[in-house]
Amino acid sequence: MAVKNAFYAQSGGVTAVINASACGVIETARRHPEVIGKVFAGRDGIVGALTEDLIDTSLETDADIARLKYTPSGAFGSCRYKLKSIEEHRTQYERLIEICKAHDIGYFFYNGGNDSMDTAWKISAISEKLGYPLICVGIPKTVDNDLPMTDCCPGFGSVAKYVATSMREAGFDVASMARTSTKIFVMEVMGRHAGWITAACGLACEAEGQPPHILLFPEVPFNPEAFLARVKECVERYGFCTVGVSEGLSDAEGKLIAEAGGKDAFGHSQLGGVGQVIAQLIKDKLGYKYHWALADYLQRAARHIASKTDVDQAYALGQRAVELAISGHNAVMPTILRLADSPYRWELGTAELKNVANIERKMPPEFISGDGFHITDACRAYLQPLIEGEDPPPFKNGLPDYVRLKNVALAKKLAEFKV
Amino acid sequence: MAVKNAFYAQSGGVTAVINASACGVIETARRHPEVIGKVFAGRDGIVGALTEDLIDTSLETDADIARLKYTPSGAFGSCRYKLKSIEEHRTQYERLIEICKAHDIGYFFYNGGNDSMDTAWKISAISEKLGYPLICVGIPKTVDNDLPMTDCCPGFGSVAKYVATSMREAGFDVASMARTSTKIFVMEVMGRHAGWITAACGLACEAEGQPPHILLFPEVPFNPEAFLARVKECVERYGFCTVGVSEGLSDAEGKLIAEAGGKDAFGHSQLGGVGQVIAQLIKDKLGYKYHWALADYLQRAARHIASKTDVDQAYALGQRAVELAISGHNAVMPTILRLADSPYRWELGTAELKNVANIERKMPPEFISGDGFHITDACRAYLQPLIEGEDPPPFKNGLPDYVRLKNVALAKKLAEFKV
Repeated sequence: MAVKNAFYAQSGGVTAVINASACGVIETARRHPEVIGKVFAGRDGIVGALTEDLIDTSLETDADIARLKYTPSGAFGSCRYKLKSIEEHRTQYERLIEICKAHDIGYFFYNGGNDSMDTAWKISAISEKLGYPLICVGIPKTVDNDLPMTDCCPGFGSVAKYVATSMREAGFDVASMARTSTKIFVMEVMGRHAGWITAACGLACEAEGQPPHILLFPEVPFNPEAFLARVKECVERYGFCTVGVSEGLSDAEGKLIAEAGGKDAFGHSQLGGVGQVIAQLIKDKLGYKYHWALADYLQRAARHIASKTDVDQAYALGQRAVELAISGHNAVMPTILRLADSPYRWELGTAELKNVANIERKMPPEFISGDGFHITDACRAYLQPLIEGEDPPPFKNGLPDYVRLKNVALAKKLAEFKV
Repeated sequence: MAVKNAFYAQSGGVTAVINASACGVIETARRHPEVIGKVFAGRDGIVGALTEDLIDTSLETDADIARLKYTPSGAFGSCRYKLKSIEEHRTQYERLIEICKAHDIGYFFYNGGNDSMDTAWKISAISEKLGYPLICVGIPKTVDNDLPMTDCCPGFGSVAKYVATSMREAGFDVASMARTSTKIFVMEVMGRHAGWITAACGLACEAEGQPPHILLFPEVPFNPEAFLARVKECVERYGFCTVGVSEGLSDAEGKLIAEAGGKDAFGHSQLGGVGQVIAQLIKDKLGYKYHWALADYLQRAARHIASKTDVDQAYALGQRAVELAISGHNAVMPTILRLADSPYRWELGTAELKNVANIERKMPPEFISGDGFHITDACRAYLQPLIEGEDPPPFKNGLPDYVRLKNVALAKKLAEFKV
């Protein structure tokens, strides 16, 4: 078996643990010099491949590569760039094959979500069509937890731990203040179409009356009357009310609640996310003072409170991707298979990319409580193991000490290519 | 010396470490049964004292009291209720003395910010006037770090560590995405009048070009032109730009920027905090895609990433407050004295409440860089030790395991009192 180089790219929104997968890929490749030469990373994802902006990871020390395991974000850069169909983007696909030829790349690892698995699958198809042997392996990643064929997605468990921790902490805060001040706290979290992250907020509640009191999922059309009635009930019963809301919350017609505020004097969509729209609705209708938080990138970058389960799985998937490639598996993605909820046991499986591409896994109805405002015990049993375990990064000067790689580019061999 | 009971209350916005001070008070009082009988806590702060809603902390186990050291928020409840002058609120002050008499309280510990130190001072004065001996000791607490006479305020160091960590993590995230997606990240932090928390974001930057690139302080009137020029410069030089902004950012006329958005169609002030106003300004004028985060209560409740320095100081101040009271010091507040920046050394001091009350300490001009957009080395030297050290709480089921006290009320002895 001839030694070939490998290509690795990160795609889409980054996470607290995508670099743990990168670490798994690179460390495993380094243990197999008889099969894999160097690992080249696309600078800013697939854009780096198209523009021949390849990072030579062999110039990074073993120690720095090991530090990737606890560094959030995409160490080589990521991108939002979706390759369309082979017909529409034929030039791009052909360019990718040219790049692989020019740099003797025989392995293509693509670390991303639904779109990326679709891209990896297409690249595998075109390489076959063009007669250039290329083994393409996808590595799952998405905070949205919406990939099919895998029990969970790396990145999600750490966001889940962050939002549940934040909700618990803010809940303690509001409880302290409610008698004379803030009675309502709303936290807006990510998840445009799937409510997994919103659901994870619910783990902070371990007994009747504990925050969060209400969850608003994108899967459940927003009903203002039922919501306000529930808020009032919580304030009267517990003295305060805490709400976790998905950015993708929509009304019965599918219109985003975040856009309900209309336009301002300049014709812009009114500022404020759905969290604030919901909070202001409570203020207007019930008169309660509110605070709201928008975790935004903080939630997916919060490596300081990552889930150990998540970190371990992210690393294991990167490692397995290389092992699959070495053993000749093409157009596949390693997956997480759950063996038991409690005590939690999991192992790695393998899915065909064609069965993963472009499918979005939403929350199953049995994970949402009858009134639509909370999670069920079944959901809790599913989510709980994913946030288990702590794996704090090293700290220096009071702050997490994350690695910044050298990221030296390879010399270019081909003509320029406009993306 | 007759044994007397003690009263303890938490006041104003709570923090990640105010309960560490409570822990210091109660544990120290329990070590001195020859002087202090029981510690009664006001439920929801001074409101609990006025309404005779007193919590008997002697019913809490030593183990639970010890857990306060790592539990955020106000374990006995806090409130926003400012006692006015003795003339205006004479009935309230007299009521407090009646409560103390009824429950044999000889020590009054008040844990709060500027207003609370003023209240403690007045209570001390009225007790003397009414001939009821009461020793009043203030315990500093405020995330705003704006109390005079003390080098720093408990609660601030932990917020500082949280915002610097969050800014670093989000900065890594944006750097990954900037080539094809988000180029601007804005994080809005607390601090209406003093820019200490905003300044703390700056600790995330340890070398040229690292986030945050721009800080917007309430002490520096907002200059949109200079700001936009700097944003553009950062994006051109680094590929992205990250901004930490104080909720209290104002224009040259002192008008809050958060209120610049005008009214919506219903006559409400437009939604969106200053973070979003600033981010939208960049989008409108420079066209860069943005994300923004509003940490809100998350920042002050984030005990999971508290500063060990802060926790230690909060505990020590609670402990010292009791020691001061036992040794007969009245109308005082223990303080933090800095002996050296690096290695950091500190000790406890004592200030007169009359010198603390109602004075607000803003950022000194020499802590803000010449262009008004960052912190100086002098500021860094001041802030750095305050975020040093980690002191994570225990975790259970993947989440911080905070204590919820029993908080049993004492039997009432007096007639009802309307607050």
